[in-house]
Parts: sequence; C-alpha cells; structure tokens
Amino acid sequence: MTIKTFDLNLSTKGFSDIHDVTSQVRARISESGITEGFCHIFVTGSTASVSTMEFEPALVKDIKKKLEDFASEHERSHHSETWGDDNGFSHIRATFMGPGITVPVRNSTPILGTWQQIVVLDHDNRSRNRHVVIQVVGIE
Amino acid sequence: MTIKTFDLNLSTKGFSDIHDVTSQVRARISESGITEGFCHIFVTGSTASVSTMEFEPALVKDIKKKLEDFASEHERSHHSETWGDDNGFSHIRATFMGPGITVPVRNSTPILGTWQQIVVLDHDNRSRNRHVVIQVVGIE
Amino acid sequence: MTIKTFDLNLSTKGFSDIHDVTSQVRARISESGITEGFCHIFVTGSTASVSTMEFEPALVKDIKKKLEDFASEHERSHHSETWGDDNGFSHIRATFMGPGITVPVRNSTPILGTWQQIVVLDHDNRSRNRHVVIQVVGIE
Repeated sequence: MTIKTFDLNLSTKGFSDIHDVTSQVRARISESGITEGFCHIFVTGSTASVSTMEFEPALVKDIKKKLEDFASEHERSHHSETWGDDNGFSHIRATFMGPGITVPVRNSTPILGTWQQIVVLDHDNRSRNRHVVIQVVGIE
Repeated sequence: MTIKTFDLNLSTKGFSDIHDVTSQVRARISESGITEGFCHIFVTGSTASVSTMEFEPALVKDIKKKLEDFASEHERSHHSETWGDDNGFSHIRATFMGPGITVPVRNSTPILGTWQQIVVLDHDNRSRNRHVVIQVVGIE
Repeated sequence: MTIKTFDLNLSTKGFSDIHDVTSQVRARISESGITEGFCHIFVTGSTASVSTMEFEPALVKDIKKKLEDFASEHERSHHSETWGDDNGFSHIRATFMGPGITVPVRNSTPILGTWQQIVVLDHDNRSRNRHVVIQVVGIE
C-alpha cells in the first residue's frame, strides 16, 4: 500500500459557498496510480466543511437556506462579540458538519452514487483562499 | 498493510429508516483476516448517511423525530419544486450528517462502546436498494 | 505503510463538555514515527463526538448553546422515558455529529489551520471517563 498527498487551492466566497471538487478528486486519484483504496478530502481552517450532495443549483439554494436557519449570519455570538470578526455562525456550521470525508476507490475511480458529488462548503463571512488536502491511499 | 473492499446491499424504506449494520461489519472484518487497522463504512447516493448510535427502538423514534424537526418531509424546497421528486429534505439531512464513518479495529474486532452500533440511515422518500461499501484496512 | 493505535483516557463533565486534544494527537503522531499519512481520532460510546473548531472560550459557549438549541437537555425523549437515564438529547447530538474524524499528516505534523483544533465533545448528562482511540497510519 502507498499514500499520495495532494494540495488543492480553492477561491471561495463565504456564507456557505459550495464548490463541487469531484473532478479535481478524480484527477488526483488518476495521477496517484492507485487502483483500489480510498481517498480522504480535508479542508483546513475552522470555518469550512466537506460533504457529499447532488450538486445542482436548486439544492445548493436549499442547503444554504437550511444552514442559515440552523445558525444564522445575523445571530449574536460570544465569538463575534469577543473577537469582532462577526463569523461565530461560520464556526458553528463548520464544527457541526466536520472538516473532511473519506470516499472508497475501486478501478481508479471514487465509488459514488450517480448524483453524488464531493463538495467543499466555505461558511466564513468573506472571500477566502482555501487549502484542501486530498490524500489517496491504497494499492497501485 | 492490506485493504479488502466489500459490498453490502440493504433494502430500506426511506424517511430516515435506520439499519443496524454492526453484525455485517464484524463479519467482513473477520473475513478480511485483518487484525489491527480500521474499517470505513460508506453509503453511495446523496440521500443516505452513516453514523453510530445505541440502536434501540425508543432512540430510533427520537432520532427520526429530530431529523423531521430539522428538515421536514413536508417543507418546500427548490430541489423538489424543480425536479418534482419531493425529496429535498432527504438531501439536506444526508449532506449534514455525511456519507460515511471510520471505526478502529483491534484483535479483529471493531472498537466500539458497549451500546454503540454502526447504522445506515436512508433519508429518501421511498424504498431503495442501497449500496454500502465496507473497507477493512490494516495488518493481517 | 504502517499503523499505530493509541488509547487516550479523558475525564469529562458531560452536557457537551468540549476538550481540546490536539496536543495529545501531536504527541502520538510524533511517537508513532510516521512522517506522511493520516490520523484518525475516534471516541467510543454513543453520547460523544469528535470534530474540529477554534478552541477559545467564547466559541465553546456558542457551540454548547447551539447544541442545546438543537437538542435540549430538557426536551422529552422516548429514550429517556423508556430507560430512565435522561440522556436522550446526548444520543441525538452524538449521532448527528458523528464519532470520529480523520486528519492528514505531513512532516510528522497534523495538517490543520492556524486556529483549528481537534476536539472531543462529551454530550452525556454526567461525568464520564472517555476512551478515545488515536490511530496514526502512513510511511515512517
């Protein structure tokens, strides 16, 4: 077994901006030469998350709305009041959803449903350059 | 180190139908011959999740109720209105909870609490045949 | 590739008591001798979770408050009424957040954001001695 670690930079807009990174993940798996194993996708920072979803515009709106209902950008937080950066809601969303996911790989391809994409969600309250780590682990 | 990939098919009923798959996971770990390592359980598709819980009927009701409070099957969604499949809530639940978990393995056994089972939750609004991937990774 | 499994005991106070375990994880990675790979942090039991956050006191309050809003310690549950242990809310919080996370490792160090710490959240309604499993996997 072997492991290959790749870095991906993403320009994001914040407020749970959602990016489909499936094609970038597929490219790194292909580049790694690993045929069977798994892939871990992890976003550094405390205001972003990784998950899977059917990446289509109507559902993007629904998930952003649900995140706003869950932890509103307008709600007061001790964090925002203490540090003045107004992104307490971003931290709360990120901690609930978690910073990464693992996806199985077979035949050099991630095992995903037909309508299942890998997404990075940036919950911060401003544009960011995000650092995403993609690790591919398995048998060549 | 080695990796073994298994497929598990589950017949589910939807609306956050919860299935205890711990015994199937234990059987694959045993079959794999791996004694120390970890196991990843992943469900394909964009309307299902994997987590752990104490799998007993009262808590199954409580978790289903909380999922209904969080994203109701009756709430309107752009996804449902656009595609007419009425399962926007299913997608939202799945993206929040995530598609998979990893469990450590020692002495050919998953390391779990006494009352902690591995569960697959199908959030869709209809019966499905679900594809679950179980990967066991480690030392024989 | 190799794998090293470590056990960590934590004394917790419950009600989503949050513990920063980043220094303990760094120490186990260092001790493992693994330079490139990943680290999995998993908590056994059905009333605790692992995630990442900026571990500072104001945000600790905010996350505890949001967990209380999401599944209140005062709300009735079938689980509590059936078993009399009054911790239905603890189970619900744990199943939503999940029992573990994976963090990439490079240069013998976890790849994390500057303000991103690894935390264990104990949602139970009493003090516990928690068993956390830290696995380091990769190349020496």
